[in-house]
Amino acid sequence: MLNWTCPVPLRDQPRIVMGHGGGGALSAELVEQLFTPAFGGPAPEALTDSAALELGGAKLAFSTDSFVVRPLFFPGGSIGDLAVNGTVNDLAMSGARPAYLSCGFILEEGTGTDVVGRIAAAMGAAARAAGVEVVTGDTKVVEAGHGDGVYINTSGIGLIPPGVDLRPGRVVPGDVVLVSGAIGVHGVAIMSVREGLEFGVEILSDCAPLGGLVEAMLAVTPDLHALRDPTRGGLAASLNEIAAASGTGIVVRERAVPVPDAVTNACAVLGLDPMYVANEGKLVAFVPPAHADAVLAAMRAHPLGAEAAVIGEVTDAHPGMVVARTALGGTRVVDLPLGEQLPRIC
Amino acid sequence: MLNWTCPVPLRDQPRIVMGHGGGGALSAELVEQLFTPAFGGPAPEALTDSAALELGGAKLAFSTDSFVVRPLFFPGGSIGDLAVNGTVNDLAMSGARPAYLSCGFILEEGTGTDVVGRIAAAMGAAARAAGVEVVTGDTKVVEAGHGDGVYINTSGIGLIPPGVDLRPGRVVPGDVVLVSGAIGVHGVAIMSVREGLEFGVEILSDCAPLGGLVEAMLAVTPDLHALRDPTRGGLAASLNEIAAASGTGIVVRERAVPVPDAVTNACAVLGLDPMYVANEGKLVAFVPPAHADAVLAAMRAHPLGAEAAVIGEVTDAHPGMVVARTALGGTRVVDLPLGEQLPRIC
Repeated sequence: MLNWTCPVPLRDQPRIVMGHGGGGALSAELVEQLFTPAFGGPAPEALTDSAALELGGAKLAFSTDSFVVRPLFFPGGSIGDLAVNGTVNDLAMSGARPAYLSCGFILEEGTGTDVVGRIAAAMGAAARAAGVEVVTGDTKVVEAGHGDGVYINTSGIGLIPPGVDLRPGRVVPGDVVLVSGAIGVHGVAIMSVREGLEFGVEILSDCAPLGGLVEAMLAVTPDLHALRDPTRGGLAASLNEIAAASGTGIVVRERAVPVPDAVTNACAVLGLDPMYVANEGKLVAFVPPAHADAVLAAMRAHPLGAEAAVIGEVTDAHPGMVVARTALGGTRVVDLPLGEQLPRIC
Repeated sequence: MLNWTCPVPLRDQPRIVMGHGGGGALSAELVEQLFTPAFGGPAPEALTDSAALELGGAKLAFSTDSFVVRPLFFPGGSIGDLAVNGTVNDLAMSGARPAYLSCGFILEEGTGTDVVGRIAAAMGAAARAAGVEVVTGDTKVVEAGHGDGVYINTSGIGLIPPGVDLRPGRVVPGDVVLVSGAIGVHGVAIMSVREGLEFGVEILSDCAPLGGLVEAMLAVTPDLHALRDPTRGGLAASLNEIAAASGTGIVVRERAVPVPDAVTNACAVLGLDPMYVANEGKLVAFVPPAHADAVLAAMRAHPLGAEAAVIGEVTDAHPGMVVARTALGGTRVVDLPLGEQLPRIC
């Protein structure tokens, strides 16, 4: 057994709390202070979403994600759809064409085989829709009371086309910030069923594979600077990660961010800010200004980007900070969330 | 929500039982009857241990494994060592040189950060020892009572050298069967601490990375037919999988199989058969007879193969069946286990 001394007090947290899995500041601390040093110190950037690798002369993207969403089935999808699209999207955010997935199940003893079957069928359908193949798998079973029905890990490999180099470090002042559509939908869809809330309109998760949309954008120019799918922690977390990693500031025009009325209303009831609510079929893009109009047009021409919008730009005025211009003409700082407002939404 | 109808009654099991994760007949049923059809029907062979892929002109191996071992720390290792070596070994069994790992944690709320830190440190050390890099990761947290401290998924990519083509389908009658050393050690090590049993001698897990041993074997000839690391279900499960997938029979000389006295004694107390007990640092090889002596010599020259032995051969006499010649001159059928004698050993 190796000795191990906590290098910093991890915010004086001697125990794991839900927020360590929330994709916010606590998650980042765990990665930077605990995992990165243990794994021999790759750049923190390399430990996010997906890694770009050279192997046998091919330039590959490699990504992993575990899924613990509750409930397993929700309006607009299931843990199976999420598990496929989540990893497909992480690959796509590096500009890769997603190709192959692995699938690791941790099943709780006593779970219905019909539940597992419906989830596997959803995964198969999602994989076919995304144009990827599930090629290798593993199943473990844990005793009742040590799981929650079904947990799934998917990992994926994709091929990065020549000339494509998407990463936060390439984001520079002047870049235009675009989102591919309405935000906050997935988190509100989960919350509506989990808490038995009804908001008048049924809100369906936006869970979708973004590989095709990214291909359409790269067809305009391979010179996109960075892409992110704002899942845990929402758009706020993605913008803060990019600002921190690139050493730039980001200004967002709040009124330009597309938020459906149903999400606005649900968030008002729940006391949530849509900027912090998870998405599973949206991306945020950092694009050189010369290409912004053409990239926006290409996004709007794609079914998954029909509501795409320019929401802001990158600045050198406040490095590492995200600022929103409010509808009333004021400004507010959009912080990195500490944890996640709604745990286990993916 | 997709409709799903259970295609066969899965042995009339409407619910997941521990054996579905045991690497035996129940695991095979779940893969063949539920996952394979759902994922669009790749050959069942492709859904085991690791997949061989072409991507960007490179020939890659891709593998995934989740680890739910209990306890997290055991004599000779931890879940962290297992998580690295397990996936490294799955890649090595395809002849690939393991290169990159991903790492997905599912942490239970309330787990000590020191526990997570010690496990991460063990993973880092194991990765360096195996010559692989952990390049991408993910962490989720589940509420107390929905996990068991730490679950880990690792997935891995390796490069398959030109001319290497290891798979069960290449095993033919006449092939010599070798093991790299003593069997049954890992399972007995886990059992000794889990059940508070003492067997006089402390038995340490054999958890180790097999990439270097495989390289030494392939240096003799790239024409090895198949390799397997006999983890869940032990040597019996691996031999049965190869026999079934290749349509051949396998004869094992029971006295030739290296079993340490401590394992024999522990198994006698526990009512277990060492042939069915998990290993985490051993391999079984199927080698054309012309190369068997040289491969055996290369194995014995490697620290992880010092006790390597020829244990049997492949025959056309009883396709799909594994038969052991006993010390007394009789024979017995070595069945595929139904589940796992000791659940959650990896």
